[in-house]
Amino acid sequence: MYEKTNITYIEKGSVGTPRGFKTGGQNIGLRAGRPDMGWIYSEVPATAAGVYTTNVFQAAPLQVTRESMEMGDQLQAVLVNTVSANSCTGQQGIDNARTTRKWMAEHLNIAEHLVGVASTGVIGMQLPMDKMKPGIASIKLNDPASPFEEAILTTDTKPKHLAVQLEVDGRQVMIGGACKGSGMIHPNMATMLGFVTTDASVAPEALKAALKSVVNRTFNRITVDGDTSTNDMVLLLANGRAANQLLNEQHPEWSIFLQGLEYVCRGLAKFIAGDGEGATKLIEVQVSGARDDESANVISKTIVGSSLVKTAIFGGDANWGRVVCAMGYSGEQFDPKKVSLALGNIALFKNGVPVHFDEEEASEYLSGDTVVIRAQLGEGGGKAVAWGCDLTYNYVKINASYRS
Amino acid sequence: MYEKTNITYIEKGSVGTPRGFKTGGQNIGLRAGRPDMGWIYSEVPATAAGVYTTNVFQAAPLQVTRESMEMGDQLQAVLVNTVSANSCTGQQGIDNARTTRKWMAEHLNIAEHLVGVASTGVIGMQLPMDKMKPGIASIKLNDPASPFEEAILTTDTKPKHLAVQLEVDGRQVMIGGACKGSGMIHPNMATMLGFVTTDASVAPEALKAALKSVVNRTFNRITVDGDTSTNDMVLLLANGRAANQLLNEQHPEWSIFLQGLEYVCRGLAKFIAGDGEGATKLIEVQVSGARDDESANVISKTIVGSSLVKTAIFGGDANWGRVVCAMGYSGEQFDPKKVSLALGNIALFKNGVPVHFDEEEASEYLSGDTVVIRAQLGEGGGKAVAWGCDLTYNYVKINASYRS
Repeated sequence: MYEKTNITYIEKGSVGTPRGFKTGGQNIGLRAGRPDMGWIYSEVPATAAGVYTTNVFQAAPLQVTRESMEMGDQLQAVLVNTVSANSCTGQQGIDNARTTRKWMAEHLNIAEHLVGVASTGVIGMQLPMDKMKPGIASIKLNDPASPFEEAILTTDTKPKHLAVQLEVDGRQVMIGGACKGSGMIHPNMATMLGFVTTDASVAPEALKAALKSVVNRTFNRITVDGDTSTNDMVLLLANGRAANQLLNEQHPEWSIFLQGLEYVCRGLAKFIAGDGEGATKLIEVQVSGARDDESANVISKTIVGSSLVKTAIFGGDANWGRVVCAMGYSGEQFDPKKVSLALGNIALFKNGVPVHFDEEEASEYLSGDTVVIRAQLGEGGGKAVAWGCDLTYNYVKINASYRS
Repeated sequence: MYEKTNITYIEKGSVGTPRGFKTGGQNIGLRAGRPDMGWIYSEVPATAAGVYTTNVFQAAPLQVTRESMEMGDQLQAVLVNTVSANSCTGQQGIDNARTTRKWMAEHLNIAEHLVGVASTGVIGMQLPMDKMKPGIASIKLNDPASPFEEAILTTDTKPKHLAVQLEVDGRQVMIGGACKGSGMIHPNMATMLGFVTTDASVAPEALKAALKSVVNRTFNRITVDGDTSTNDMVLLLANGRAANQLLNEQHPEWSIFLQGLEYVCRGLAKFIAGDGEGATKLIEVQVSGARDDESANVISKTIVGSSLVKTAIFGGDANWGRVVCAMGYSGEQFDPKKVSLALGNIALFKNGVPVHFDEEEASEYLSGDTVVIRAQLGEGGGKAVAWGCDLTYNYVKINASYRS
């Protein structure tokens, strides 16, 4: 769907790529041998939008970032720490998040409400304030110790970032992003932090609506383990440095901007799914012919979230029975006699009846890095895509020992 | 809750224990070295009730058993095979299930509609009819080759059975059961087959209502991996051999019978959860103080179904943050500030704030066979219990290679 728009991928691009943004990271002693604090800074206050976890236990940094945003939909800096998620930490956790926001604002000499804060790590652990204070004081915008993309990772095996350039309103506009997330990943946000920047000038309400709808089609379509974290957040900052005319839904090229944003968010989401804890493969589930898009969405997420589908794919086993089984318990109604299924281009099941297929060809296909499962329901025009990963020994290993 | 009723546990009791029932198993060549066909037979037609999977793909044997029951709520024999689940097998699958029912009826010289059939194994595989026919023909009611309880197992590591005796209406009544289930186990039935018999005389409508409500409080409260199979079924046969007066909801001792039935189903359900694929521990989640029972039910199932909770318990890690996180994404609304949590008798979290606890004591507790997680919400009087198991390397191993 992107072919018609002239979106240019920027080699090694990231959240700091759009004009007027700086990012960095450093180690402040929260963990050994890896950076553990990251920051994003915009030369000018940026119009900002956020989406947050739907978990009832919403971590302190999310509450404090929302407070900031409520002051005027602007952010100029974001501070991120790992190791402590500052979640389920009571009033002390809120106070600590506010204090780090204040320290960051003072250090950068900007208003407090222009700072957002994000945390990821163990739930129930208070922020190590004795290390946060000197850590923030030592942030050097022009000479960061290490990349932002690495400072925000937990069990991730690699940094995840992406940027594109596109022409909107006669101007070159850049959109960049970085994210982290590996476990506790499930639609409706995950222990996933996503940071997206653009130098486009965008109206606040339009920016919020754009982020919400794009997140629903990208980050909310991934799952690693079905656990939705308390700390998930995606922030989008638009600082206007591209000097285009203000974009909003009425602008004739609004859809071009939206496509660029979706391209970046989709790419980041797929990076997370493919780097799921212990994963060896990205699984993409394409559902079509459903009653409507929402039904397709539920079915695709149920398939990609099934432990039995995930282990079968890890084992290289074309056990399609587990796929149809997952469709069947998704809660969506459809006629089983109209269902067809394929693995890549290999038909497995047609109109409710098994199809003879070459097991060796299927095994070969399953040995690749990406596995595409296609389900066709024959009920209507609804379609959706969801992404996830296989379930492996390493998922168990990582999560049986993560905290200690 | 059973203290007041005089329920006597019958040593080594099972589904064949109540008067007038016979059970057995044998190997008919569907798999090597283990019995693969089992049967239950009642000397007289028994009043019967069944509950079936909610999966849209309902396997052929379930459809055919329902056909039998619709002829008059009676069964006299049940035939069970492993290896092929006869699910997603189209019209041929239905025809095959009907044919095996016919062969069984002819062999036992009873009416076809008095035979139920059940299958468990790989989805999409047709019944091996060339082996089913001689297999059925060789069933010897009085001299079975092997126990029914072993013939119905798949990835289960041990047979699961239980029987009790209780006095109802001045008569000694027995209730016995056997089940199988290890993976694809989730509330609303699972690749779980449960067979319960009683020599009590019970009215058909009362028997159906009793089974439905008891299954909701027992088998439907367990989860292994969140996958709900196409073949789940629990059948209850009551043959009246105890010669009591017909039991129904109006009988003054109806609740005694119900308690006995719940005792048996609860025991069988816990056997399944504790023998989940790869499991090393039974996890029991007790939720109280919820808005209502349904809310407590949803929260308890969400906790016990969380991959992150399951791996933490496998790792002996008192990572309570994952428990509150799971509560928070359950979809139920509650005030996080009123939530308290304990592991056995060790308090971890009180009124929304972490409690200092002895990590060593918690590790010691987690090394046991059974782990009890208690959550108190402070919202109302709703309560529920759910059972599950830890998520281990062996779960992945078993399911990455099950089919082949």
